[in-house]
Amino acid sequence: MKTTLTFLGTSTSVGIPVIGCDCASCSSDDPKNDRMRSSVHIQTATHSILVDSGPDLRQQALRHNLRKVDAVLYTHCHLDHTAGFDELRAFCWRRDSPLPLYSSLSCLDELSRVYAWAFSPENIYKGYIKPAVHPVAAPFMLGETKVTPLPVQHGSVETIGFRFDQAGQPSIGYIPDAKSIPETTLDLLDGLDHFIIDALRPSPHPTHLSLPEAIEIAQAVGAKQTWLTHISHETDYLLEESKLPPNIRFAHDTLTLS
Amino acid sequence: MKTTLTFLGTSTSVGIPVIGCDCASCSSDDPKNDRMRSSVHIQTATHSILVDSGPDLRQQALRHNLRKVDAVLYTHCHLDHTAGFDELRAFCWRRDSPLPLYSSLSCLDELSRVYAWAFSPENIYKGYIKPAVHPVAAPFMLGETKVTPLPVQHGSVETIGFRFDQAGQPSIGYIPDAKSIPETTLDLLDGLDHFIIDALRPSPHPTHLSLPEAIEIAQAVGAKQTWLTHISHETDYLLEESKLPPNIRFAHDTLTLS
Repeated sequence: MKTTLTFLGTSTSVGIPVIGCDCASCSSDDPKNDRMRSSVHIQTATHSILVDSGPDLRQQALRHNLRKVDAVLYTHCHLDHTAGFDELRAFCWRRDSPLPLYSSLSCLDELSRVYAWAFSPENIYKGYIKPAVHPVAAPFMLGETKVTPLPVQHGSVETIGFRFDQAGQPSIGYIPDAKSIPETTLDLLDGLDHFIIDALRPSPHPTHLSLPEAIEIAQAVGAKQTWLTHISHETDYLLEESKLPPNIRFAHDTLTLS
Repeated sequence: MKTTLTFLGTSTSVGIPVIGCDCASCSSDDPKNDRMRSSVHIQTATHSILVDSGPDLRQQALRHNLRKVDAVLYTHCHLDHTAGFDELRAFCWRRDSPLPLYSSLSCLDELSRVYAWAFSPENIYKGYIKPAVHPVAAPFMLGETKVTPLPVQHGSVETIGFRFDQAGQPSIGYIPDAKSIPETTLDLLDGLDHFIIDALRPSPHPTHLSLPEAIEIAQAVGAKQTWLTHISHETDYLLEESKLPPNIRFAHDTLTLS
C-alpha cells in the first residue's frame, strides 16, 4: 500500500473565510478558498497518523471518514493546532491501548497543563482521552516509517515539523508554522519528494514565513514538489500561483499526495 | 425590534454525526440530525449575546453571518461549551472595549487558567482576545434585558442556565446542561414563553437529564413552549417527538424563536 498524505486543513489560525470578513478570498466561491485550520493525515501501510488536532478536527474527520488514529504528532502548542484535543475521544473509544502523542517535551507539558484531566493518573472514566506521551528529540519509527522531528523557529513557542521516510514510498517534509529554519534542520530536508511549508501571506509577519521567504527556502531545499500551507485570507492564491514555478504550488483542503 | 433566540447548536459534546459512527441518527439524511455543539445567540434591540463558545463557533458564526458580539455568557467550563474561545478574536477586532464575559466565578477562573494569556495584564498584543470578566450570582442587565443566572446540578462542575426578560418581549429560560434543578431555581422559571432544557437521551445518564426527566421538569415549569436540546445520537428525535405533547418539541440547529 502506498503512503498518502491528505491535507485536512491549510489555513492560518482564523480559517478562510474569516468570521465577518468580506475580502476577495473570504467571499470567493472557489472551494480552494475554503480553508480549515492546518492539519494533515498520513496513512502508511500500518499506521494512521494525525499531525495536530486543530479546532476543525471533527469536521475534518467527518469529511474524510477518518475513524482510526494510531498516533497524533503535534508540531506545537498553539490553539489552531491543539483546540480539537477533545475530539480525539472518538479515536480512543475504538482502541484497546492509550493513544500515543508525539511532540516536544514542552508541547506535551502544555497539553497536560491545559487538558489536565486526561493526563491525570485518576483518569479512569470511560469515554475520556487516554494519552500515552512520547517526547521526541530524535527520529523514531511508526511501523516501517521513520519520523524525524524538524526543529524550527516560530516566535517564542518551541515548534517542530516532521519528516516521513519509508523505503519505496515518497519522502515528505511537513513544516506548517515557521519564521525561519535553522541550518541543522535544512540539512535534514535533503532529497524530499514533497516539501510542505508555511507561507502565510505575501507581506512579512513576525512569526510566520512570508510567501517570498517560503519560496526562497523551497528553492534551497529543492524538493521535487513544494506545497504552500497555513495560508491567510490576505493571499490571492490564484494570482500568486501564476508567478510561481510549476514545482511550487498552494496546497488546498482535501488535496491528497502519494 | 423583537428579541430573537437562534439555536447555533443542539448536540451533546461529540456532535451528530459522531466521528466514525454508523447509527441511524449519524447516518441520517435529515438535516435536523446534523447537530453542532450546544450554543445559542440572542439578539435584543441593543445587544448581540452569545451563550457559550463551543468548538463549532467558527462554523456557527459563518452560517449565521454573526459579526458582532456584545457579551458572552458561559453556562459552565466543559470543553463542548468553551473550546471555541479563541474564535472570539474575530469579535474583539471590531470592538473598542474589552469583550464582556459573564459566568460563575469558578467558570471564569477556569477560563483564565486555560487561556491564561488572554487574561494576563501583559496581554497587549493586537489581535488577541481582550476579556472583561463579570462574575454573576444575581440578575444583571444587558440593555433593557434582565438576565437571571439559574444554578443547576450537572456533575461536579458548577453550572448555570440563564433567563432573559424584557417588557414586551418573550421571556426565555435556557438550561443546556443539567442533571437536576433545585427548587430555588424552579421558582425562577415561572411564566416563561420558551423553556429550553437538556434532554440528552431516552436512558438515564449520571450528569444529564434523560428525556423522561426533562419532560417531567418541563411539565412542572409549565412554559408556553419547551424546546429540548443537548441531544445525543442515541435519540431518535422523530420517534420520540411523536409521543410528546405539542408544546414540547426538539430544538434543531438554525431554529429561531421570537
